[in-house]
Amino acid sequence: MDLKPTKPLSGFIELLPAAQRFVDFCAARMLGVLRTCGFSYLDLPAIERAEVLTDKDNWDEIETQMYLFQKGDTKMGLRYDGTVGLSRYVAGHLNELTFPFRASQFSKRYRGERKQRGRYREFYQMDMDIMDINSLSTNYDAEIISVIQRTLDSVSEFIGDNYVLVGSRPFWDALFDYLGLTDNQKKEIFILIDKRDKIDDAEFSSWLSDILKNETLENEIKSVFTNGYAYFKGKSDKLDTAIKELTDFVEKLSVLGVKNAKIDLSITRGLAYYTGLVFEFKLSEYPELGTAAGGGRYANLVEKFSKTKIIGVGAAIGFSRIFVALSESGKIDLSKFESSVDVAVLIMGNENMPYAISVLNALRDNKIPSVAYLDTDKKFKNQIEYADKIMAKFSMIIGEDEVKNNFVTLKNMANGNQQTLPLADAIKLVK
Amino acid sequence: MDLKPTKPLSGFIELLPAAQRFVDFCAARMLGVLRTCGFSYLDLPAIERAEVLTDKDNWDEIETQMYLFQKGDTKMGLRYDGTVGLSRYVAGHLNELTFPFRASQFSKRYRGERKQRGRYREFYQMDMDIMDINSLSTNYDAEIISVIQRTLDSVSEFIGDNYVLVGSRPFWDALFDYLGLTDNQKKEIFILIDKRDKIDDAEFSSWLSDILKNETLENEIKSVFTNGYAYFKGKSDKLDTAIKELTDFVEKLSVLGVKNAKIDLSITRGLAYYTGLVFEFKLSEYPELGTAAGGGRYANLVEKFSKTKIIGVGAAIGFSRIFVALSESGKIDLSKFESSVDVAVLIMGNENMPYAISVLNALRDNKIPSVAYLDTDKKFKNQIEYADKIMAKFSMIIGEDEVKNNFVTLKNMANGNQQTLPLADAIKLVK
Repeated sequence: MDLKPTKPLSGFIELLPAAQRFVDFCAARMLGVLRTCGFSYLDLPAIERAEVLTDKDNWDEIETQMYLFQKGDTKMGLRYDGTVGLSRYVAGHLNELTFPFRASQFSKRYRGERKQRGRYREFYQMDMDIMDINSLSTNYDAEIISVIQRTLDSVSEFIGDNYVLVGSRPFWDALFDYLGLTDNQKKEIFILIDKRDKIDDAEFSSWLSDILKNETLENEIKSVFTNGYAYFKGKSDKLDTAIKELTDFVEKLSVLGVKNAKIDLSITRGLAYYTGLVFEFKLSEYPELGTAAGGGRYANLVEKFSKTKIIGVGAAIGFSRIFVALSESGKIDLSKFESSVDVAVLIMGNENMPYAISVLNALRDNKIPSVAYLDTDKKFKNQIEYADKIMAKFSMIIGEDEVKNNFVTLKNMANGNQQTLPLADAIKLVK
Repeated sequence: MDLKPTKPLSGFIELLPAAQRFVDFCAARMLGVLRTCGFSYLDLPAIERAEVLTDKDNWDEIETQMYLFQKGDTKMGLRYDGTVGLSRYVAGHLNELTFPFRASQFSKRYRGERKQRGRYREFYQMDMDIMDINSLSTNYDAEIISVIQRTLDSVSEFIGDNYVLVGSRPFWDALFDYLGLTDNQKKEIFILIDKRDKIDDAEFSSWLSDILKNETLENEIKSVFTNGYAYFKGKSDKLDTAIKELTDFVEKLSVLGVKNAKIDLSITRGLAYYTGLVFEFKLSEYPELGTAAGGGRYANLVEKFSKTKIIGVGAAIGFSRIFVALSESGKIDLSKFESSVDVAVLIMGNENMPYAISVLNALRDNKIPSVAYLDTDKKFKNQIEYADKIMAKFSMIIGEDEVKNNFVTLKNMANGNQQTLPLADAIKLVK
């Protein structure tokens, strides 16, 4: 019989136990921060109707990245982000939620894109969104940024410091209007800006020239990157309004205690659904990881699901992209995540099982991570080797004498010290 | 524009925030028990190659329950349980894992079956498995049962007491041999036994008669359910061996502190891959929920992936089946899960934002779940209504006076009591 393959599909993640413990440790810390910041955790379906995921109901034209399939008459697919499902959920529960509604998610997303370094086809993102009906103060945009920074800072011992770049979709809208560009040119330029960090200046210029075919316009666009927003002050009322919103906002961030915030107009978040301020977090020590988190304000996303006007601001942390990559980088000391237990109970002979199990149960009742080696006919050598391999901090050895005297023999696996003492004392010592 | 549907697909779960908090609370408790019992948590891909999920590589004949699809040339599908992926993983990492290897999983599974009460198409199971190379003491079968009971008991305030029924696949194999049945008859009888709780005695008899067409044989099978194992003692060596293994095992369970364990030979776990003892947990107070957890020993599952002989014993808790059903039953008091925060910071005027945010940051630094109402131009009435609706335990009100005096006004939302005091004192009071 041919053996089946043991590797997961390309682009799918599975970790060894120690790396998994590291990743879980970071996730738990970060989710704890989101709870402290009052976000309600939601666990939405991974599968949505195809019509919810796509804007066309045309089976052939759908984005090739998505995992789409059919079951009976129903076309469906795996979610590629958290925002589309959340928009559907909020629209469906308008009368059962309190607004402004704060939602967090931590779930797997699916994109069947070509495999490249640091990109996965199944990956976790950690989302936070705040939505309200009719209006939403930009104070909430600042709150989202502050919460992301708090979340990333909670694991700074592993990922180091972070900074945030803030851009503005209204600035670009105002600039395109001022330059009199066509809708198609606007779209093409957004695609180009999104690709900007993957191409060099010459390629950028030639691509831009293909779109605009007008040197004056090309230079105006390029000056965004060379001169920043100051160059566009006073050119139109719309530009001035957008610039003031952006500069006021970054000032507010600093008042609110957000550190390392800078304006960067090249941050546009691609062609996505954003309509206001947008932002990206980067890790100072890990530029190679790219964007650690990104988000912004969206005014029109829920309108596909509800006539009630819902405005949202939200962001996603690229959880797998950061933590799986780090666990594989060799830059994280995984040794302190190697051990799964504090105590291994070793049993010298099957007749001592009942007493050994009562010891094991007492350890577990005291929330001390512990296992027993239950192949009781194996030699002591095998048993102590097992305790060593699972990196137990202590062995608790149970033989005839221990049972007779109602004691345990506790061995410190780091230094080999061994002592015989009552169970209650051993538990205190281990704790 | 037509609005898109806001309901999730039929058979898919999404909960309101309070129900989600209840479910998450139970999951965290139970996963904590599995950590204490030394299980390494694994997070395996939800998508596997089709050939891993199925035993045929014939695209047309595959079980209609599975979600299968194709991306490029690759046939793949969503996992329907946790054991198949775990077997692949263990076979692929034989040299990197320590045996006996203890794995826990808590992940979504997918079955596109016809929707029926209490069955979901996307659902969580919580798995625990212990695997070893070449041999594995039945002490580990007992350990798995003990750990499940510990896990269920950790949330007994919600689900009440539990009991466990233990069956034996070797008993049935021995009985079938003793009765001289054909392979096809054996398979048909297992299917029938699996359906036994859904049909009445008359239907069972007539179905059994269709399979065996021999009244003596039919009565022998029926006597399993009426007379139990005692009736079969001494009928064949193989039967005696199977009966002794089972009775010894249930005795051992009681020595190990497992309560409410009973032999029930009608427990067979269907046509699945089990080869030894099998068991099911039920909830005493919720018979309508059916099987809360089930599992057993499997000797041949990993052989599809590796020439190394791996024997496992494992079980899955039907997490969604229990906790989603309970959250919807009205039998759980969800009121204590309604509140997402302890403190709502209310800000009287935008100019007090910086001080209010420093208060908010101090609360969060002290791990006190808290939010600020950031639409600072809304009336106090709106703000206090919001604090009420999100069921904050306290409001912390920040106005001109509080800023001037470096104080906060703390309002107990339950009794309306209000006092003005330094932030540090307020934090102590809230904690």
